Amino acid sequence: MNTTLTLASFIVQSDIDSIPSTVRHEAARALLNWSACAVGGSTHETVDNALAAVLPFAGKKQAGVFGRKERMDILNAALINGISSHVLDFDDTHVKAIHPSAPVWPALLALAEWKGVSGADLIHAYILGVEVECRIGLSVVPEHYAIGWHITGTVGVFGAAAAAGKILGLNEQQMAWALGIAATQSAGIREMFGSMCKCLHPGSAAQNGLKAAFLALNNFTSSERAIEAKRGWGHVLSTKFDADAITTDLGTTYELSKNMYKPFACGLVVHGTIDGCIQLRNEFQLVPELIERIDLKVGAIVLELTGKTEPTTGLEGKFSVFHVAAVAIIQGAAGEAQFSDECVRTPEIVKLAREVHAVIDPQLGWAQARVTITLKDGRILDRLILHPLGSLERPMSDQDLEGKFVDLTAGILTPERCNEAIQLCWSIESLSDAGAISRALTII
Amino acid sequence: MNTTLTLASFIVQSDIDSIPSTVRHEAARALLNWSACAVGGSTHETVDNALAAVLPFAGKKQAGVFGRKERMDILNAALINGISSHVLDFDDTHVKAIHPSAPVWPALLALAEWKGVSGADLIHAYILGVEVECRIGLSVVPEHYAIGWHITGTVGVFGAAAAAGKILGLNEQQMAWALGIAATQSAGIREMFGSMCKCLHPGSAAQNGLKAAFLALNNFTSSERAIEAKRGWGHVLSTKFDADAITTDLGTTYELSKNMYKPFACGLVVHGTIDGCIQLRNEFQLVPELIERIDLKVGAIVLELTGKTEPTTGLEGKFSVFHVAAVAIIQGAAGEAQFSDECVRTPEIVKLAREVHAVIDPQLGWAQARVTITLKDGRILDRLILHPLGSLERPMSDQDLEGKFVDLTAGILTPERCNEAIQLCWSIESLSDAGAISRALTII
Repeated sequence: MNTTLTLASFIVQSDIDSIPSTVRHEAARALLNWSACAVGGSTHETVDNALAAVLPFAGKKQAGVFGRKERMDILNAALINGISSHVLDFDDTHVKAIHPSAPVWPALLALAEWKGVSGADLIHAYILGVEVECRIGLSVVPEHYAIGWHITGTVGVFGAAAAAGKILGLNEQQMAWALGIAATQSAGIREMFGSMCKCLHPGSAAQNGLKAAFLALNNFTSSERAIEAKRGWGHVLSTKFDADAITTDLGTTYELSKNMYKPFACGLVVHGTIDGCIQLRNEFQLVPELIERIDLKVGAIVLELTGKTEPTTGLEGKFSVFHVAAVAIIQGAAGEAQFSDECVRTPEIVKLAREVHAVIDPQLGWAQARVTITLKDGRILDRLILHPLGSLERPMSDQDLEGKFVDLTAGILTPERCNEAIQLCWSIESLSDAGAISRALTII
Repeated sequence: MNTTLTLASFIVQSDIDSIPSTVRHEAARALLNWSACAVGGSTHETVDNALAAVLPFAGKKQAGVFGRKERMDILNAALINGISSHVLDFDDTHVKAIHPSAPVWPALLALAEWKGVSGADLIHAYILGVEVECRIGLSVVPEHYAIGWHITGTVGVFGAAAAAGKILGLNEQQMAWALGIAATQSAGIREMFGSMCKCLHPGSAAQNGLKAAFLALNNFTSSERAIEAKRGWGHVLSTKFDADAITTDLGTTYELSKNMYKPFACGLVVHGTIDGCIQLRNEFQLVPELIERIDLKVGAIVLELTGKTEPTTGLEGKFSVFHVAAVAIIQGAAGEAQFSDECVRTPEIVKLAREVHAVIDPQLGWAQARVTITLKDGRILDRLILHPLGSLERPMSDQDLEGKFVDLTAGILTPERCNEAIQLCWSIESLSDAGAISRALTII
């Protein structure tokens, strides 16, 4: 069984008509969500620094940096847009913990802006890119991640290569080479979490995957068994490699159906807590003065990842289940505004956060939570969240996603441009030139 | 012990006056040898294809592609020059099987051409880059390579980052970030051997290491324990990690002293065979008509790597100890000309190659060989090669390296330009602008 060639053949032969309309609509939802994150992250210091580093070496003004005025060659544009879309940790998440859009959309949107690509072709390529990266990821989880690889970077490069290769019309042999060139550029380690390099990973994956497609188009050869060979990607980068996960039911199921969008600007592990707190707040008009204490029961990994007490920066606030619960109750939200340095240091929030007590309940899954609020008048309010908003079971609605786009792009895109971008995303399948979306996301 | 910060501090504080003159002269020898390979490889199809892929996206004409007319931004120039310098498999080899120059010189020479850098600063940065990549390599060999990593790519990115970072004047914190950004881009798998991707590895290492230095200069942060942390480079990319190999005697010994240059245009594992065949040929005026059979005893890995019988292309010829022995006897050489498709298919050579019989002798090292030639007149000629030409014990002389430069650049550089480049390499320490070397290697 040649996994790499099977995958290459599938990508090349795939026809958009064979893809269910629900999956195609999911691509539009993913685009709207991803674009919101890219524009929203575009003013971050991480993006400023990356741009300052590469601009002196960038090529012709082929594609824009979303949310900004800079234009550059498509390879560097893909890098920067990949970085900005992951910098807020607000982008989408496949159910197996891969962020599928951040490596793929930057490559595709840069190509679309430069070449002119129909919207139908673009979402088709996106769906295939996500399929490829997620399936390759599924072949090595959880061992690959446990070793220390940041899977969004390591498999994202395959997704970008496959998607770009589909747009470029690679033949099967070239597509196998593109996957191989992707395999041999696959990189990114979890030790970088907490530094700017975390979002370099999807950026580099986007850039290197796009580059892989162009190298393959120009007959730059690689192994044609790059994924499955004894010294191929699967065996070198993981202690487990299950080739069947890549090829079983290929073309009959779509991993994009298992994609999730975050309503809250922090790790999924605290989404159950936030959801429960906001529900109780809204139903009982809670204000801090009414509250005696807040008890949380959370999944096993929650305190390891978000156990920070007394956070002092916005970023630290994202890793504090205590801040998260307090701010959700006081402000009824957990967007970027709730993770500013100023917000995290607000005395009223700091005070309430000290009344939050969290314990692990091994019965609960990693995103689930039970919120129990004891009021000063003796009442006890209780909410068990098994499926937080944004989960597969309780997805954000299309309207929720529009709201997220408006929130994240406010102050960066004009209201007119914001509305235009939303409409273009929903109508992408009918666009003859999907580069219009890229243009709507940049500042002119 | 913080390995990454120790290494960063060493790089930043190193003074060229503390480096022995023998090591500095070795840098000039390495430059001459590497330049020969880069120019000699520049007309290869691999380079054509890579150039065609990236030229539409390349930036301003800051640096040249050696042996060619194209000019582009320094990041892409480093990529292409890294590819061309490894494509012939003729570049230098550290005693632990890392090719140290191919990732480092392309980054440095592009920088020198763009910025103007003194020759003394350039060789200083080169020596440090080699030191860093080789020491990081030593911390994980042989396990890292055995897993399937192409170590020239995976550690080369550190070398390029360190060398470029020294030229850019990074402070210690920035240098630690540069090493971290390198770590999280480290890539390249051995499955690619035999395809064009093998030489993509040092090219990408040069490009990504140079990019890492510029990102760090612009305060793009990474982990400061990128190499040694639990989920850092050493533990993620190897089953063995010996941090002491990186820091012990740092600044008192130099790995560049253990660098070797190839007299023959193929893998080191067959150099003992070639050397023995050429010695016997020249001493006994051997011609095929005199020869009954040729028996080789070789090291254990030789038949695994170069056991190809009946090669039909020049590239396959490099992986055939049979062709190698036959062509060395008939032509008395094993340069690029001996690995053309035409040469490999020459009936006289194919016929003699069939009389070559190779067996493993576990007593022999991987580059050693015993050549026994039985003549039709009954004589038996025998030669044991323990230290082939080009080994540390029997290095190529400065004059040998000049001859290699002349051979490899013939037909690409004019004789005047060839001579100029050789003189510039030998006098590099006195050059106020080492960009002169880069310019001498390009076609104007």
